[in-house]
Amino acid sequence: MVPGSLLVVGSIALDSVSTPFGETADALGGAAVFFSMAGAVLCPVQVVGVVGSDFPEEHLKKLASRGVDLAGVERQRGESFRWKARYSYDLNSRETLETRLGVFAQFQPRIPEKFRDARYVFLGNIDPELQLNVLDQVKQPKLVACDTMNYWIQGKKDLLLELLRHIDILMVNDSEARELSGDWNVYRAAHWILGRGPKMVVIKQGEHGALLVDPETTFKAPAYPLQEVFDPTGAGDAFAGGFMAYLARTGDLAFPNLRRAMIYGSAMGSLAVEAFGTQRLEQITLQEVHGRVKAFRDLIHFSLDGEA
Amino acid sequence: MVPGSLLVVGSIALDSVSTPFGETADALGGAAVFFSMAGAVLCPVQVVGVVGSDFPEEHLKKLASRGVDLAGVERQRGESFRWKARYSYDLNSRETLETRLGVFAQFQPRIPEKFRDARYVFLGNIDPELQLNVLDQVKQPKLVACDTMNYWIQGKKDLLLELLRHIDILMVNDSEARELSGDWNVYRAAHWILGRGPKMVVIKQGEHGALLVDPETTFKAPAYPLQEVFDPTGAGDAFAGGFMAYLARTGDLAFPNLRRAMIYGSAMGSLAVEAFGTQRLEQITLQEVHGRVKAFRDLIHFSLDGEA
Repeated sequence: MVPGSLLVVGSIALDSVSTPFGETADALGGAAVFFSMAGAVLCPVQVVGVVGSDFPEEHLKKLASRGVDLAGVERQRGESFRWKARYSYDLNSRETLETRLGVFAQFQPRIPEKFRDARYVFLGNIDPELQLNVLDQVKQPKLVACDTMNYWIQGKKDLLLELLRHIDILMVNDSEARELSGDWNVYRAAHWILGRGPKMVVIKQGEHGALLVDPETTFKAPAYPLQEVFDPTGAGDAFAGGFMAYLARTGDLAFPNLRRAMIYGSAMGSLAVEAFGTQRLEQITLQEVHGRVKAFRDLIHFSLDGEA
Repeated sequence: MVPGSLLVVGSIALDSVSTPFGETADALGGAAVFFSMAGAVLCPVQVVGVVGSDFPEEHLKKLASRGVDLAGVERQRGESFRWKARYSYDLNSRETLETRLGVFAQFQPRIPEKFRDARYVFLGNIDPELQLNVLDQVKQPKLVACDTMNYWIQGKKDLLLELLRHIDILMVNDSEARELSGDWNVYRAAHWILGRGPKMVVIKQGEHGALLVDPETTFKAPAYPLQEVFDPTGAGDAFAGGFMAYLARTGDLAFPNLRRAMIYGSAMGSLAVEAFGTQRLEQITLQEVHGRVKAFRDLIHFSLDGEA
């Protein structure tokens, strides 16, 4: 393991979220935050992002105290990225009440010199033009994974398709995979994407788990059966952080280890939603993560009989 | 294995279904049909049901040729049960266009003497009063599982709760579990049901697989990643048939075998939807079923690392 070899570029935000169980105001949030908070349990994480002049220093300290390297976080004059949302009573749908991009609107990722050797790179959901620009700045990554969203699929599809030729893993949710491919069947959608460059596709399915698809095989990770979910915010980003950090920790990209990485990601996602915002991830121990991974095995494994 | 020890009571119908890939008219259908057609691959199945004077003899021959014992199928004067439905473009929702109960409206299950020793009994979705009545007619079943639907949950909840005290497994879909328990969280809903009598609850989640919940553990069986689904009709009943027939075949109710039964059920459900109506199940071989079970293992199994 090369410490500090996992880099994430993405949003750092102030989240105001209400669920049936409570609400937060200007809490620490953003894709790069959930990603790095989850990933840091498994390996050091480097973050590139931007915050405004109003961003509380204590929020950044929460990340630093988990070993996250914030040398790539710029503080710019202006307002921080703010996101406000409300979840339905069953947490299965949410309504975005307000999105104020603030300084994130002009975000130009600059990778610090000491981050350019990163071997594992995660391009959070930003303009594909900026994602391509990040790839120009890193030297020789071993694995590049990338998120995107419907906004870019609709508005910058050509650049997104160009980006797909330069990454190893596209990690999207099922509606994004469907929209990008124009196919409602997620397995066909995944294979459509594989035909555009990536070696693998990870499709996040929220409360139904996640799929890893490569040209030969499909692996299904279930979601963990939680009787209490407090706040689904950041679950997908925590999944991505756990997935990438496990690969960076082990340095092994063979398929059995990619499957394990899917389960470590799923474990992180399932832990993240047990409290509001980043609260659970701030406290989580490596032992708890291993324990959840074992619980996943108990949830899904079965033995074949003599006949099959 | 005691041949002929699996009994199913339920609907035998003429289905007219349209999907984006084609349509059928007055095709062989009904819960007891999909159940027994799937189950018969693994063990002999006995059916109790009713058909009208218009029910094609060739339809019944399809069941008989698969080894299904139709001694409990009464032919009554009048129309057969007819069901007409149309699926959405992505097959995830369907609209019932017409339900004509015909002779099924007055169905009074009479268990033939030779079926009363059945060790494994599946009570298909009928009036809970009739389901209780069937239980009075069978002698000493080893395992009784039961389906129901929202109509009975709303209209005959007291009788349904009475029934729950006399069965081993309730097998319902997620919306039914939610409605019965009044809890939107399926895991809490399952535990609510466990508190009413059954030893286990199976929750069918359609394209997201199925859950087996007992007081101590939860097992999650995924759905199989199919690139082509032609007709989802009967998938849940084929699942139930595979599940119960595997248990009847093996005679083993220990948890490792119940997990395998969930996978055999899932294999049957995934095979059923590969063609219209019962077409795929009419042809299926035991070898194909074992092959699909192995494919399920390849889909979900992972090995732990040294740390976890």
